[in-house]
Amino acid sequence: MNRETEREADRRTGVWLIGARGNVATMAIVGARAIARGVTGETGMVTAREPVASLDLPPVDGFVFGGHDIAPESLVDRAERQRDRNGVPDGETLDAVREDLAEIDERIEVGTAVNCGAAVSADSEQVDESLAIRDVVNLIRDDYERFRERRDLDRLVVVNVASTEPELADPERYDTRDALERAIDEDDRDLPASVLYASAAMTAGHPFVNFTPSTGNALGGLRELAVEESVPHTGRDAKTGETLVKSALAPMFAGRNLHVMSWEGHNILGNEDGLVLEDEENAAGKLASKGDVLDSILPDIGHSRVRIDYTPSLADWKTAWDYVHFRGFLNTEMKMQFTWEGSDSALAAPLVLDLVRLIAHADEHGSGGLQPQLASFFKAPLGVDEHDFSRQLDRLYDYADRHS
Amino acid sequence: MNRETEREADRRTGVWLIGARGNVATMAIVGARAIARGVTGETGMVTAREPVASLDLPPVDGFVFGGHDIAPESLVDRAERQRDRNGVPDGETLDAVREDLAEIDERIEVGTAVNCGAAVSADSEQVDESLAIRDVVNLIRDDYERFRERRDLDRLVVVNVASTEPELADPERYDTRDALERAIDEDDRDLPASVLYASAAMTAGHPFVNFTPSTGNALGGLRELAVEESVPHTGRDAKTGETLVKSALAPMFAGRNLHVMSWEGHNILGNEDGLVLEDEENAAGKLASKGDVLDSILPDIGHSRVRIDYTPSLADWKTAWDYVHFRGFLNTEMKMQFTWEGSDSALAAPLVLDLVRLIAHADEHGSGGLQPQLASFFKAPLGVDEHDFSRQLDRLYDYADRHS
Amino acid sequence: MNRETEREADRRTGVWLIGARGNVATMAIVGARAIARGVTGETGMVTAREPVASLDLPPVDGFVFGGHDIAPESLVDRAERQRDRNGVPDGETLDAVREDLAEIDERIEVGTAVNCGAAVSADSEQVDESLAIRDVVNLIRDDYERFRERRDLDRLVVVNVASTEPELADPERYDTRDALERAIDEDDRDLPASVLYASAAMTAGHPFVNFTPSTGNALGGLRELAVEESVPHTGRDAKTGETLVKSALAPMFAGRNLHVMSWEGHNILGNEDGLVLEDEENAAGKLASKGDVLDSILPDIGHSRVRIDYTPSLADWKTAWDYVHFRGFLNTEMKMQFTWEGSDSALAAPLVLDLVRLIAHADEHGSGGLQPQLASFFKAPLGVDEHDFSRQLDRLYDYADRHS
Amino acid sequence: MNRETEREADRRTGVWLIGARGNVATMAIVGARAIARGVTGETGMVTAREPVASLDLPPVDGFVFGGHDIAPESLVDRAERQRDRNGVPDGETLDAVREDLAEIDERIEVGTAVNCGAAVSADSEQVDESLAIRDVVNLIRDDYERFRERRDLDRLVVVNVASTEPELADPERYDTRDALERAIDEDDRDLPASVLYASAAMTAGHPFVNFTPSTGNALGGLRELAVEESVPHTGRDAKTGETLVKSALAPMFAGRNLHVMSWEGHNILGNEDGLVLEDEENAAGKLASKGDVLDSILPDIGHSRVRIDYTPSLADWKTAWDYVHFRGFLNTEMKMQFTWEGSDSALAAPLVLDLVRLIAHADEHGSGGLQPQLASFFKAPLGVDEHDFSRQLDRLYDYADRHS
Repeated sequence: MNRETEREADRRTGVWLIGARGNVATMAIVGARAIARGVTGETGMVTAREPVASLDLPPVDGFVFGGHDIAPESLVDRAERQRDRNGVPDGETLDAVREDLAEIDERIEVGTAVNCGAAVSADSEQVDESLAIRDVVNLIRDDYERFRERRDLDRLVVVNVASTEPELADPERYDTRDALERAIDEDDRDLPASVLYASAAMTAGHPFVNFTPSTGNALGGLRELAVEESVPHTGRDAKTGETLVKSALAPMFAGRNLHVMSWEGHNILGNEDGLVLEDEENAAGKLASKGDVLDSILPDIGHSRVRIDYTPSLADWKTAWDYVHFRGFLNTEMKMQFTWEGSDSALAAPLVLDLVRLIAHADEHGSGGLQPQLASFFKAPLGVDEHDFSRQLDRLYDYADRHS
Repeated sequence: MNRETEREADRRTGVWLIGARGNVATMAIVGARAIARGVTGETGMVTAREPVASLDLPPVDGFVFGGHDIAPESLVDRAERQRDRNGVPDGETLDAVREDLAEIDERIEVGTAVNCGAAVSADSEQVDESLAIRDVVNLIRDDYERFRERRDLDRLVVVNVASTEPELADPERYDTRDALERAIDEDDRDLPASVLYASAAMTAGHPFVNFTPSTGNALGGLRELAVEESVPHTGRDAKTGETLVKSALAPMFAGRNLHVMSWEGHNILGNEDGLVLEDEENAAGKLASKGDVLDSILPDIGHSRVRIDYTPSLADWKTAWDYVHFRGFLNTEMKMQFTWEGSDSALAAPLVLDLVRLIAHADEHGSGGLQPQLASFFKAPLGVDEHDFSRQLDRLYDYADRHS
Repeated sequence: MNRETEREADRRTGVWLIGARGNVATMAIVGARAIARGVTGETGMVTAREPVASLDLPPVDGFVFGGHDIAPESLVDRAERQRDRNGVPDGETLDAVREDLAEIDERIEVGTAVNCGAAVSADSEQVDESLAIRDVVNLIRDDYERFRERRDLDRLVVVNVASTEPELADPERYDTRDALERAIDEDDRDLPASVLYASAAMTAGHPFVNFTPSTGNALGGLRELAVEESVPHTGRDAKTGETLVKSALAPMFAGRNLHVMSWEGHNILGNEDGLVLEDEENAAGKLASKGDVLDSILPDIGHSRVRIDYTPSLADWKTAWDYVHFRGFLNTEMKMQFTWEGSDSALAAPLVLDLVRLIAHADEHGSGGLQPQLASFFKAPLGVDEHDFSRQLDRLYDYADRHS
Repeated sequence: MNRETEREADRRTGVWLIGARGNVATMAIVGARAIARGVTGETGMVTAREPVASLDLPPVDGFVFGGHDIAPESLVDRAERQRDRNGVPDGETLDAVREDLAEIDERIEVGTAVNCGAAVSADSEQVDESLAIRDVVNLIRDDYERFRERRDLDRLVVVNVASTEPELADPERYDTRDALERAIDEDDRDLPASVLYASAAMTAGHPFVNFTPSTGNALGGLRELAVEESVPHTGRDAKTGETLVKSALAPMFAGRNLHVMSWEGHNILGNEDGLVLEDEENAAGKLASKGDVLDSILPDIGHSRVRIDYTPSLADWKTAWDYVHFRGFLNTEMKMQFTWEGSDSALAAPLVLDLVRLIAHADEHGSGGLQPQLASFFKAPLGVDEHDFSRQLDRLYDYADRHS
């Protein structure tokens, strides 16, 4: 068959989720299967809207899911817990995809949480921690390959949606492909799980998406590899709530030459993400990527801060309160406040599906390395300095126009 | 001297304000003179920021102010009242420009408020209401010309910053230049003041800015005139607060394919503008121009409403509360709220100065008719369908890049 | 059996709801039956908490429901619609009481909506509108009596939870029992439905609760009757959301001698109540009872306003934004804002059950006329000038202490 | 003259402020003198409102001010800085009292900041730190006495309005008068400044008010002394903003039997108080006293947290955002949010004057020890468990009624 004329709808796309039983993964799988079953629509998906919808993208209803996790709770149990606590998914939707979830759950392999911090690995089941790092990488890669073969996939996209790791100290020591390979060979115990997953994927040529603030493919050695081997990859830290609003609002202050003196952000959330971020080490990376947005758009900003607190009763809901104190003409001090109340997973899940579709498209078109057209999806987009949401979107639209 | 090589700094720009003793005009004059006196900066002015700052624009400190008004209160008294009630300008700034204000006040001529609604013309001093419409237009034009000659101006820009008029019924009857001229000749008593001011300015070739929701230069007959005579003009209804925020935020919902079910906006303000808008007739035009923004950016929006209420204690401060109810992936209902607390005049005044500078630039470069590059300044930009603030700004930046 | 020693638990209490298929009635019935079935608790019920819980009150699980309505939709259908749109009640709770609802639905008689305004009576089924008023009253009374006999009730409490009527003009013409009786006899077509229901109940000696802003038992003639015949009655307009908060917050400003210059309240809601209140006539009564609270607690208040708007997507949820502009020491102007997001029916329903229990208690103890100890339940408590929520509660607690 | 018949207006009341050049003290002095000069009113003062106004209280315009401080900045400079940064006091008011401030400034003695934490004592001037604790106490007492004699005062009230100290470890070791005296004699270096000031005042019989969360008169030994010597004292941590609102709102949730699952409070402020509270040690005491309110009123509360952050641009303004997540009937989850924007000093200052007047009244009437009628003024009222603002106020009103 002539590959050039084959459309994505006829090809099989595998989606391998690191953290496959977490909130975001569960909601992405539920959503994709609900779309496939015809019981929900595509609201919230960027790829369902023009001009992006005109691209030849792999259809969501054809996604074949698999993944790694260290949590013993099954996908069905997790989805039921989300239904009961958050009302999302609703009961009818869950019933429609319950069997799909059970089937997918059997394809989820035991993962690693090396250097993920104490908050993450409690009560977990992991690959043998005494294994050499090289062996762990090989195990992961074997999982990918076995999945690919057994499910007869044309392409496998790996997406990290696991809990946020503590920041890696001195990441520049892994700035080259050689240095990273050597570290793995020498059983370097500082490497965090996200790097092992990314390395296993990218050396095998699988497109990689880092949906989290963890290090993963941001490491210099992996970026070098991606360019040399023409593997598309992107990240990091998906922009779903408060930071999304900031990236839309801050340009307004800049565009009107209003001076922001203070921008305070206070986030409260009740899911596992919130619990992990109670741990200061795990929170550090998140806060770093959230902070870049304002400094980039408002270089003269006087003061900004982001707080993330765990409020158990909110379950998967995240509420942010932002307070912006700014000065205008004639030194007039003025204020803007907003609150944002969103379901963390319901905001994130469609972006996972969007990113799989779009990075598969890049892969199909031979575009390796970082993907600047995907900057609008991330708080700290790899390889892109632009944080203005509207300008980031323009890059995606330009890409869509070029390829349609 | 060769005009082509003369820079704007060496030329004299007149600024004629319709409603010259109102809040916005007073603050614009105070600000311009405070900049000239070196006691305040240019925060809040779009033209003070790159890339627009690179254009050869007439300097604010060289502006020569005049205008029409029907209010007997002097500029100095109005400015003192603003200081006492709003704290803007502060005492020191006002002291530095008090003499300038007194001098400018003597150049303010008695105006007309025909068809401006009962709320506007109370306690006012107007030109003889028994005069024929043609004679009123001539009087206005004579005021412009006398000012231009006496102050030895190279250019005169006319800006309407008067209170909002009731909407004009059946404006299409004035859709051609001929029809409008005929109506003036036949003493058509339906024509509102804003049209008379605009007509007098544009027939004499003066660039015209409509800062308000009133009809003015939006009339078909004047748009035809502007094209035929190459007079630059722009409007309408400056975007200073809630609508500005909407035009920055609504694209975020669109860009993420989130479905806005309801967008409620509630504005409370305490200045004369608020008092006039208590009158339902005067409010209609304002509400119309505010409404377009959401319908344009979010064509599928389920419901939206804007309320404007008069809250005397707020004086010149305007507070808006907006509530956005939207649906995302898996039918998840979510919410965003914001409040905006700004000084109406301090937000508007710098834009008056920006618009004078930018329309003078268009005039200098022979660009007549509507000015789409100025869309970002308006709630209902004449001749432009784009309401996304970021995209509107891009037009201005493109213009700046082309002319720098 | 000696009545004095019989406890309420052994007696049969009937609850007759005017508007028995509306949101509030449906939720009250669902809640009472869910308590009876052991699937929900008593959170939100004032009578479940000390010191009120110590009174000998009729138990909720023994309530026997009946009522009037003009809506054809069944109780089960309405409850399912509430579940689907609002998530309250949840599916499990509804399943547990579905059969109870179906049984109760059969006891709901066709009612009247005379003078209830156009917004209320659309698509309704009513008693023959050509009947004489006296005949309508008799029909209603017969419905009460038949229910009482068939269900073998010891006591029947009638509660008006129907949609808000337009205000009755010149209510003082019915200020005596005689005048009211004469008006009914002379077929006075100005009398609204709420008065007919109240009159039929109170002349038969049934305790009456007016949960709405409608006229009902507030009429002078009925108040006279209640005293003379020792019938306990109470109302009006249950305090469930924004006004509740006001009655708790306004005393704080008073207590600290802070001067409230403006208090703006903006309510948006999406249920039938909201739709009816879109009609200015129906809204008038509601706005009047909401307004009293601030004027009473803050006699020096400068300005206040309440807006109620219909926002369909909110369904049964009501969001209020209040903005309080106040002045403190040294003329310092300060601000407080709040938003309240509540389920209208879920807030109201437990108060219906509380009021039935408490007015039954008053009846049992021979206390006729108005019941000042119930003031905390109402926006415009009949016979009580106190609007401070805390002081109103103290009256209830004193009553409880006296009777325990 | 017979003391019994002498009215407070004829007697001389001295007010000694610990932290006399701080924000609160400065504003209290400015306010008292502005009242004396007739340029401001008594809005914000509880004692200016009935029923408290009927008590025979020392008039504010007769207060004679003095105090201790470690800051070198003069009262006039501080007041000017407040005017410029906060707009409170305004220029006219400050001009009217400038000379009074200069005169009072000369009566401010150098104080001690022993154990006040690093954040407090930077750039300060203090009494010789090598002095023995007993000598420091004596110096303080001598300052009090000299002031009393020189100004010919009938009574001296000492008020602590200094920055918050770190919490004292193991305060129970000073639980008796003897233990405390012994510790001072033995040069116990753990005793914080607030205890030394309180001890010096109370042993000399001066009424003492602790406006702050610092230890001061809360120590067991001083409480014993107050009872034995009949010295009136009160505290601690004046309730001026977010906690005041909480103490008015939380009873509403309790009164309606609504279950608060989470109550998040986020405070941002820009004054010295905020800077000091950036220091975790200094913040601990404040957070402790703020936390009691909710636990006391809502014993079943699921979760609560208070954050205090320093936002320099806010200067003396304090903004609080509170988010209340609660559950009502049928497990319905609902939400309330509020923001409070107040000038910290303008809210606190009138309470300083109120407390001086009211504790002088207690002293005049021979009422020693703690003063439960003053509970409404404090976040953690000494000797009172009631945190419901309305019930606290009732104690004050009962006191007023008893003594009027």
